[in-house]
Amino acid sequence: MADINSKLEMPVTTGPLPGSRKIHIPGTIHPDIRVAMREVALDPSANEPPVRIYDSSGPYTDANAVIDIAAGLPPLRTPWIEARGDVERYPGREVKPEDNGVANVPGGKADVAEFPNVVKTPLRAKTGAAVTQIAYARRGIITPEMEYVAIRENIGRARAEGLIRDGESFGASIPDYVTPEFVRDEIARGRAIIPANINHPEAEPMIIGRNFLVKINANIGNSAVASSVAEEVEKMVWAARWGADNIMDLSTGRNIHNTREWILRNSPVPIGTVPIYQALEKVGGIAEDLTWDVYRDTLIEQAEQGVDYFTIHAGVRLAYVPMTANRVTGIVSRGGSIMAKWCLAHHKENFLYTHFAEICEIMRAYDVSFSLGDGLRPGSIADANDRAQFAELETLGELTRIAWEHDCQVMIEGPGHVPMHKIKVNMEKQLAECGEAPFYTLGPLTTDIAPGYDHITSGIGAAMIGWFGTAMLCYVTPKEHLGLPDRDDVKVGVITYKLAAHAADLAKGHPAAQLRDDALSRARFEFRWRDQFNLSLDPETAMAYHDETLPAEGAKVAHFCSMCGPKFCSMKITQDVRDYAAKQNTDAMLEAGMAEKSAEFRAKGGAIYLPAAE
Amino acid sequence: MADINSKLEMPVTTGPLPGSRKIHIPGTIHPDIRVAMREVALDPSANEPPVRIYDSSGPYTDANAVIDIAAGLPPLRTPWIEARGDVERYPGREVKPEDNGVANVPGGKADVAEFPNVVKTPLRAKTGAAVTQIAYARRGIITPEMEYVAIRENIGRARAEGLIRDGESFGASIPDYVTPEFVRDEIARGRAIIPANINHPEAEPMIIGRNFLVKINANIGNSAVASSVAEEVEKMVWAARWGADNIMDLSTGRNIHNTREWILRNSPVPIGTVPIYQALEKVGGIAEDLTWDVYRDTLIEQAEQGVDYFTIHAGVRLAYVPMTANRVTGIVSRGGSIMAKWCLAHHKENFLYTHFAEICEIMRAYDVSFSLGDGLRPGSIADANDRAQFAELETLGELTRIAWEHDCQVMIEGPGHVPMHKIKVNMEKQLAECGEAPFYTLGPLTTDIAPGYDHITSGIGAAMIGWFGTAMLCYVTPKEHLGLPDRDDVKVGVITYKLAAHAADLAKGHPAAQLRDDALSRARFEFRWRDQFNLSLDPETAMAYHDETLPAEGAKVAHFCSMCGPKFCSMKITQDVRDYAAKQNTDAMLEAGMAEKSAEFRAKGGAIYLPAAE
Repeated sequence: MADINSKLEMPVTTGPLPGSRKIHIPGTIHPDIRVAMREVALDPSANEPPVRIYDSSGPYTDANAVIDIAAGLPPLRTPWIEARGDVERYPGREVKPEDNGVANVPGGKADVAEFPNVVKTPLRAKTGAAVTQIAYARRGIITPEMEYVAIRENIGRARAEGLIRDGESFGASIPDYVTPEFVRDEIARGRAIIPANINHPEAEPMIIGRNFLVKINANIGNSAVASSVAEEVEKMVWAARWGADNIMDLSTGRNIHNTREWILRNSPVPIGTVPIYQALEKVGGIAEDLTWDVYRDTLIEQAEQGVDYFTIHAGVRLAYVPMTANRVTGIVSRGGSIMAKWCLAHHKENFLYTHFAEICEIMRAYDVSFSLGDGLRPGSIADANDRAQFAELETLGELTRIAWEHDCQVMIEGPGHVPMHKIKVNMEKQLAECGEAPFYTLGPLTTDIAPGYDHITSGIGAAMIGWFGTAMLCYVTPKEHLGLPDRDDVKVGVITYKLAAHAADLAKGHPAAQLRDDALSRARFEFRWRDQFNLSLDPETAMAYHDETLPAEGAKVAHFCSMCGPKFCSMKITQDVRDYAAKQNTDAMLEAGMAEKSAEFRAKGGAIYLPAAE
Repeated sequence: MADINSKLEMPVTTGPLPGSRKIHIPGTIHPDIRVAMREVALDPSANEPPVRIYDSSGPYTDANAVIDIAAGLPPLRTPWIEARGDVERYPGREVKPEDNGVANVPGGKADVAEFPNVVKTPLRAKTGAAVTQIAYARRGIITPEMEYVAIRENIGRARAEGLIRDGESFGASIPDYVTPEFVRDEIARGRAIIPANINHPEAEPMIIGRNFLVKINANIGNSAVASSVAEEVEKMVWAARWGADNIMDLSTGRNIHNTREWILRNSPVPIGTVPIYQALEKVGGIAEDLTWDVYRDTLIEQAEQGVDYFTIHAGVRLAYVPMTANRVTGIVSRGGSIMAKWCLAHHKENFLYTHFAEICEIMRAYDVSFSLGDGLRPGSIADANDRAQFAELETLGELTRIAWEHDCQVMIEGPGHVPMHKIKVNMEKQLAECGEAPFYTLGPLTTDIAPGYDHITSGIGAAMIGWFGTAMLCYVTPKEHLGLPDRDDVKVGVITYKLAAHAADLAKGHPAAQLRDDALSRARFEFRWRDQFNLSLDPETAMAYHDETLPAEGAKVAHFCSMCGPKFCSMKITQDVRDYAAKQNTDAMLEAGMAEKSAEFRAKGGAIYLPAAE
């Protein structure tokens, strides 16, 4: 930790993904917005247009961008925010030694250097103003953020293009085409949020809601045991590169404040935190010593830095805590257990619950979104869907309505460990109790018996609950329950959740979700190996696996694969069947003097019989 | 390949899994049977009995077994088979050079040595006898195989012990306790099979059916590009070690016959094959040159060796082939594409369909089970649930009834690539068309865009379709679509499918499935790290991941973990909450002079309030 400077020189990962380039699409209502997307060019033999892909990676994958993490990303939203005329700069809160956990360290100096050129005058709402996206939406205003996400959700698709509607959405209202007005309406109704703190202008707007593409979140954090600031920035860049739509900074221990500043200034995706973690550090790790003043001060500290959403465990009410006493795994949420301990120590109601309206005032002044935490989520199959869990969920519904009254954006956190047959009722109850506010779930893990593979036990539950209507899936890495995820674990977790989210989009019938599957499957069938790799979620791993068996460059253009070898290949045989069928057909027609009929027939695909289903 | 002898010296993997020992439970009806199980001993501090686990690994994990792959496993079923008095030994078919693909090689000698002491006089049914488990079941006979699987399915559980019924079984008839009579009845009705060729007496009986534990299959095979016989035996041992209930040998190219013999003589699990692969080798890889005689000869060759089930693509009817012409990925099943090509080349009905009754006669004489192949399964999301796929499934239903008329055991193979919202109808249609014969599915893969992670895209679909009623899940490895799985890939594929199958068992409400989850969760909550590792599907990986962050031996008994560090741990806080709650309660009661009330209260768990749900 001492040699911070050399750590900072560690470059973050930059450069396009294989076969890809960054494109930018301008707005119509707001012509100055430039919505970033990724475009994968296909082999000329395909005779297909490039495939556009939703892109969370930010400028790091733009070949034309200059990256300097000591300078941070360009603040693309600053002109939009200032143009609204409802914010003011003010002298921000002074950074205190306890913000970095070094109050008791001689000299009070953090190990992690302060971010250069920290903005000392953050933005906040002018007195009485509500600067949240929901406040604008309710007033009928389509913000640049809303138009940005509308274009982004369509993945550059023109209105009538590539529409495939096929799915079961369980009562969602997914449109054929996402308009800025649809986005505004969904936000106004509280069914979607754009996490967008006015002090995090570097983030590219994204939307979380049941009627949009399913999103994923990756957690990072400088745990008490390891890591440095440059590694944390790189973890964020790395997770976003592979598809994390949001990142939560779950740091504990020292240097939290400074580390978070580095992350925020360099993050193209919204950043969430659990403020109670830092508040606890400030009182020396003693839950009983937490006070509303310490917590409130922490909210303002983080809101000024630009955190886009706060997990707030205001639903862990005193009366619910004893409901967990006979659980197999008690309270497994860190925030939940801290609040439970506080409640019991003082035999008082949770101060986050009693001060909830005050919290709303703070959130509204910076447009920090609520992520109402599920502090009583089940930590094992045995504890799923119990009274404690659902009692808290009911309270989260009550708090959602209060937050909406204050013009705040809200999403709701969900379990946890839940067997498959108990997943759907979680979604249904959340929709009913919380007025369709977006659901944001961890997994759920569908069995407890596979530590080391909990990205998969939870990926199963995540795909299902995403299908049922969850708007954002919090990833789980292979190290869950066992240790701290490293770079490879973060990537595996992100890719697993991307595929789960995409499986959910397909099953929900999100328009055009299937275009990428179809493009990849055509590439696979036509042995366009490079295209298959480039269209996949993880081109590097796909190519590496292919090359393990058939490393020669020639194999990548060969019309066979390693499973069957050159002579015996089902895809080749299928092509032979098609050719044979076409020839049979042509011969028969020529014999009958029906050459023009034959040409028509070949145009239809060359089958002996037309498919019955057509 | 030349240095076969040194390859053979490669030892297969033996020895118990961590913390485990092999136990054997005797029968009651058949006292000589000894049902193998694994028992995990827990830390004495747990004060819990050992946990019994279903064990597919065979004698290789028995510390007392002597393993010699040149001798093969003990033929445990031979006395049972012979005692029935309905089989006879006869001079088996001579091995021909083309059986090993070396008809055109000078000398006609296979690269892979013949298995030592091959039984030259295989068993077959006496004339007119039906030696299948379904034939016995229909006659009211409870065979040793049936009692074996009854004990095995209960995982050593006594009748009333550990019953947790909680689930949604979608109309399955899962009993609280599996009796031998229940097994017999399920087999008689065709709802379950015990794949048990009379010439594979080394295999430990196992059952495949909707009302039993969900099983998994692993594929191995000496592809045209790589591998040797000792590697193939080790792959089988390795897959069974981690939980593969069945293995399919999908070898192509040379040495098929000899390799299969080595695998069968050493396999504790049933072995399945796709005989058309070998038949195609015998005709030089030219699908059009296939004949009924070559195929029939191959069936007998493999039945005499002891293959337990054959995948037979008899449902790929001529009229269905053109239904695939406009698919995105045509016909992706190798067997399906071979038969499609044959049908079109001759413009004749599939000879497996026209000779189906003759095939039944052969299957019945050895008790080879049918696995009716889905040659027209979809190879992409775009092709899921199309007319070609379902037309074939309807024919498989017709063939199921014919096989049952011949006293043959049958299961049905299923897709493939299917998005989540189209999975359930596959199960429902299979049950309806095929009279509840067991379903055996590949995945299904729920999206096409994640090559390199298709164990996960398919694990999602596998867990779901297993829940809906699929009896056996065919694994997919990370190398699917890309290359040949190595040892690590096989393990990852097996573990992924074990967790998917277990998630399905939990959701179906299989009695006592949750016992292992609960035991592991208690270990997790109580920081019994060793117990947590030992109870997990992959103890080695779980421990390795833990040790990456906290390698010290002390950390394995520490009451904290690397995620939170020693000071701040939610599980520790929960314990504090419990202790605090108990003390609060005791204090209050003592003040009120209610000491005896307090003792009662503590016995109930020490909560301030009794849980509302209790």
